[in-house]
Amino acid sequence: MTGRDGGADIGPIGNAPVVILVRPQLADNIGAVSRAMANGGLFELRLVAPRDGWPQDKAWRNASGADRLLDAAVVYPDVPSAVSDLHRVFATCPRPRHIVKPVLTARGAAAELRSITGRDLRAGLLFGPERAGLDNDDIACCDALIRYPLNPAFMSLNLAQAVMVMAYEWWTAADQTVPRRLMTNETQVATKGDLDNFITHLTAELDECGFLRNLPKRPGMVRNIHHFFQRGEATEQELRTLHGIVTELALGRRQRGRSEDAKGN
Amino acid sequence: MTGRDGGADIGPIGNAPVVILVRPQLADNIGAVSRAMANGGLFELRLVAPRDGWPQDKAWRNASGADRLLDAAVVYPDVPSAVSDLHRVFATCPRPRHIVKPVLTARGAAAELRSITGRDLRAGLLFGPERAGLDNDDIACCDALIRYPLNPAFMSLNLAQAVMVMAYEWWTAADQTVPRRLMTNETQVATKGDLDNFITHLTAELDECGFLRNLPKRPGMVRNIHHFFQRGEATEQELRTLHGIVTELALGRRQRGRSEDAKGN
Repeated sequence: MTGRDGGADIGPIGNAPVVILVRPQLADNIGAVSRAMANGGLFELRLVAPRDGWPQDKAWRNASGADRLLDAAVVYPDVPSAVSDLHRVFATCPRPRHIVKPVLTARGAAAELRSITGRDLRAGLLFGPERAGLDNDDIACCDALIRYPLNPAFMSLNLAQAVMVMAYEWWTAADQTVPRRLMTNETQVATKGDLDNFITHLTAELDECGFLRNLPKRPGMVRNIHHFFQRGEATEQELRTLHGIVTELALGRRQRGRSEDAKGN
Repeated sequence: MTGRDGGADIGPIGNAPVVILVRPQLADNIGAVSRAMANGGLFELRLVAPRDGWPQDKAWRNASGADRLLDAAVVYPDVPSAVSDLHRVFATCPRPRHIVKPVLTARGAAAELRSITGRDLRAGLLFGPERAGLDNDDIACCDALIRYPLNPAFMSLNLAQAVMVMAYEWWTAADQTVPRRLMTNETQVATKGDLDNFITHLTAELDECGFLRNLPKRPGMVRNIHHFFQRGEATEQELRTLHGIVTELALGRRQRGRSEDAKGN
């Protein structure tokens, strides 16, 4: 990932959609685009008439190791030649006017791209130049437009950011990670029995020290303590630590108690 | 959006999560972060011990108009002071080790952030410095980690890209846009009756010119033509154009036919 000589091993290429930058202006941005593509598992880059020519060192300097993707980038003179071997092409376009076209969200597009490439068809994603965006002839070559749901009061999106969102959605469309899990590393989640053992230990010491001396309130207090420790999703290791804390605090109290008893004598 | 004097009107502030950059190194990145935040409707930026001090002109130059967000950014000496008024804090962290912590996907985190802020609690998102990432003490201040599902062979994410993904997910978590719609602008989607009128018109002309002269095959051919035009989700305007095309093509043929008849005489 941090290798520079020839860049990083960025994963298998496969049939992921091709990213096509139409008349990109800044080589910095082309480099940042390649990095975002590698992040999201998009590996084939095409450039339509890059303003400052190609290749440009600046792109490699801004690619953070996604060199192979830039090394393999191909330049085309226009959009029709850049898409001619593809079966479906979607274009990102924030504010299309006066045209009749299907409009997809980024997430909707990612799902359709997975479906298209899953049928062994080749798909492409068109991104317009930094300032002007795609023109109407570019858009006429596309099957659908992609419009990101974003703050309508501030839709000005950097080119690499636009690619990042789409690459992220492409990757996520095939990802099975659960939305929330507890990372426990070396230990594991404690069972209810483990937790009960701890609550029993704690309660015994709280009875001993007098914290639970109000007997009518005792059941509710014990229950509230139980509620709190339940919420923390304790691991086995953490319960061992909590047992130790209770034991040591109680021991300290008993020793103080003894020394105070001694003083009192 | 392109205004520079005091920047753009980036929308209402509300109770969106606070973005906290911990020991950020490059002012360029801080500017790019502010732009990404504005894209996704995150408006409050806090900086913990920025390496080169604050303010830095470069940040404003890279913000593409999200100036107000930078103008209002507040600097803190450490993470505990930056999060002290918040109720829940999530930290983006690609490769956490040896800790016990809930881990959320970006999408899972966005859903939880919507739920948290919907209860009028204040939430924060912690992003680490460009190279080193968050340290273990930073992470200990957080409720959960966020880990983006991305290409495991290339996880090196630019700081502004990391903020972009989270801002995008935050916005999308409350967005109702349908995944696919047909943008029709001035016209509207044609009814089945409109489409049938066109197919009838086309079929009549195809009968007339002899294209459908193979009578046993005629029903299947008409059906296949119908299938194709069905798939195009025609608008009323497009059907008018198609009627015109058929009429003109047929007229041209008839006129040629007449002149050929004349020649034949």
